[in-house]
Amino acid sequence: MPSEPNPGADLARVRDTAPLIHNITNLVAMTPMANVLLALGASPAMGHAREEVADLTALAGALTVNIGTPSPHWAEAMAEAAAAAEASGTPWVLDPVAVGATPYRRRIAGELLARRPTVIRGNASEIRSLAAEQGSGRGVDSTESTRAVAEEARRLAEQTGSVVAVTGEADLVTDGPRAFWVHGGHPLMARVTALGCALTGVVAAFVATAEDDDALAATASALACYAAAGERAAEHACGPGSFAGHFLDTLYGLTGEGLEARLQAAAPR
Amino acid sequence: MPSEPNPGADLARVRDTAPLIHNITNLVAMTPMANVLLALGASPAMGHAREEVADLTALAGALTVNIGTPSPHWAEAMAEAAAAAEASGTPWVLDPVAVGATPYRRRIAGELLARRPTVIRGNASEIRSLAAEQGSGRGVDSTESTRAVAEEARRLAEQTGSVVAVTGEADLVTDGPRAFWVHGGHPLMARVTALGCALTGVVAAFVATAEDDDALAATASALACYAAAGERAAEHACGPGSFAGHFLDTLYGLTGEGLEARLQAAAPR
Amino acid sequence: MPSEPNPGADLARVRDTAPLIHNITNLVAMTPMANVLLALGASPAMGHAREEVADLTALAGALTVNIGTPSPHWAEAMAEAAAAAEASGTPWVLDPVAVGATPYRRRIAGELLARRPTVIRGNASEIRSLAAEQGSGRGVDSTESTRAVAEEARRLAEQTGSVVAVTGEADLVTDGPRAFWVHGGHPLMARVTALGCALTGVVAAFVATAEDDDALAATASALACYAAAGERAAEHACGPGSFAGHFLDTLYGLTGEGLEARLQAAAPR
Repeated sequence: MPSEPNPGADLARVRDTAPLIHNITNLVAMTPMANVLLALGASPAMGHAREEVADLTALAGALTVNIGTPSPHWAEAMAEAAAAAEASGTPWVLDPVAVGATPYRRRIAGELLARRPTVIRGNASEIRSLAAEQGSGRGVDSTESTRAVAEEARRLAEQTGSVVAVTGEADLVTDGPRAFWVHGGHPLMARVTALGCALTGVVAAFVATAEDDDALAATASALACYAAAGERAAEHACGPGSFAGHFLDTLYGLTGEGLEARLQAAAPR
Repeated sequence: MPSEPNPGADLARVRDTAPLIHNITNLVAMTPMANVLLALGASPAMGHAREEVADLTALAGALTVNIGTPSPHWAEAMAEAAAAAEASGTPWVLDPVAVGATPYRRRIAGELLARRPTVIRGNASEIRSLAAEQGSGRGVDSTESTRAVAEEARRLAEQTGSVVAVTGEADLVTDGPRAFWVHGGHPLMARVTALGCALTGVVAAFVATAEDDDALAATASALACYAAAGERAAEHACGPGSFAGHFLDTLYGLTGEGLEARLQAAAPR
Repeated sequence: MPSEPNPGADLARVRDTAPLIHNITNLVAMTPMANVLLALGASPAMGHAREEVADLTALAGALTVNIGTPSPHWAEAMAEAAAAAEASGTPWVLDPVAVGATPYRRRIAGELLARRPTVIRGNASEIRSLAAEQGSGRGVDSTESTRAVAEEARRLAEQTGSVVAVTGEADLVTDGPRAFWVHGGHPLMARVTALGCALTGVVAAFVATAEDDDALAATASALACYAAAGERAAEHACGPGSFAGHFLDTLYGLTGEGLEARLQAAAPR
């Protein structure tokens, strides 16, 4: 039976467990993602060589794969790590950065989708692109709104068996039948690079420590924590530079109290 | 007829347009460059695989190529992206990091120069090295002053047809006949890594949205904005850590007022 | 005759000399390491292509090699740079990140050890793993305490001829017969990514400018400065985000006064 998301309890479990998260991420996100995971209380590990990705994934509580700055050797390692995760039942999260921008990214994402990611996290354009296999023709920024792609997200979840998280001005997380809207965040989050990529790591940390293997509830909790941290950090920020520092401080000190109010169940289907 | 630089109007146009800038940059500059472009109001995209660089450049308003951490696959992709930009008339900016330090970098820069960059932005040592094909024997820091290489910069601009920007304690931008000095900045800018590399992205954003395709005026405006942000950010900084945050905040909140006073036309030749 | 570490004088020499440090480091550490070296007053240069690593090492006062995100081309360049450093007598520092985590990293580290690093800097798990060639089975975090591995660190130093620095909650530096404990630091240092990797660069800067080529004393001084900066920066921090900025500011403004009190000689053997 599916559980209700409990962000406060889930956050406490991440901190108590400090799960090791193996990340194959893009070259822009490497440092911010590691800093976000450390502020959260998780333990990041990066490694992208075919010679060791399966070993690293075997040690990890979860894997993330981000196609943001792809190249052939990296794409091979991504596929190998995803296959290792699938084979061992290790949860893994796909971040299809700018998948609509080039045929090369669409091909890589397509191969990774076959490895059945536990969660797919992207912005509205990326989720639409994955769902429709039709590019938005733009870079990494979202030119669609979350609401506009909610139906496609639910369909993508049903087709793939993955939990799908669409993040942006509003966040949606769904496994198809069930869906939650997540309230919070702040426009400054889009002015700091790789905060979306880093959220993929946060989702992985929550899914790695999920109760009853409920990836939907764990992802909803991750999004609620992130949205709360973003909103609160912005209260003291003068711009994206100070925001970035406040965001890590806020995530580090975040208490679970009241986080569940950020979640709103959508009508089932 | 060449226009006078109008930094305030040019900055407003960058923000209104939010141009997509495709960057092939070095591994140190990836994150800071993306953050600077986001703070400015532009939209950064990174990608370095031959399999997609032409596609990304085709989507972009401008391309930047930075040779800071070169390797063979990357050098091939740089050449391919530069060729795509040249073929389509997309403006592109070359950042010849530490070109004087190794024969390998000189060879890569030489091949890129053949693709006719719209702008070349470097420190005095790098510009001297490009101009003279004689290395300074030092790493990425400038050991020359901008004034000492002003004549070589003008000659390099004439030889290549590129706008040449020399940045450091003083900034100079020239297309050969015309030249502008830019006032401002702060020594702390040299204590934060990749701020020069990130400036290359800012130049690209201004050139992508240049009025009348005047790359000289657009580059002068970019340098004036950057110098103003650096000078103002330093007023509140206790060192390079706090300066880095203030710099992004200041660039984000920068108003165009008075920026033109930072530009001084040099005698024509 | 071995000298006593003199952190204040050694720090002044680093700042006066601004040594060029060539770093082949991991993809997470690139930017933070460069920022730490710039805040300290040294001059970082990154480059990892076989086509130029020997040239860069030849220009540098010291080399660092960090195996944190290894891949075949990089491992070849690491070996080549280390060989160049060994051949020319340039000091070099090995950072065996997560060497216990995968056989691949153990193999790379083993080959690098044969090039006789001047200093090996790692956390307790990494030093134990190197000493025993038995992995700890965990990622990049230390699961051992410095005190627990002090004996192995001294043995590793004797076996390799390298100075061995174990850093963590407590720091130890030893060449086998001699050893120093270093007091200071703060738990927030472990919540900011790559501060350990960046310390490897700081050690290199001190060793590059060491008096009487005393790498043990220079490493002890580097650790004392870093521990002092960490401890003082934490006084004003609200979490890892603000700590990271304060740390760079503090390192930039650090005075040498009283730093020697952070060092305590261990019983000789």
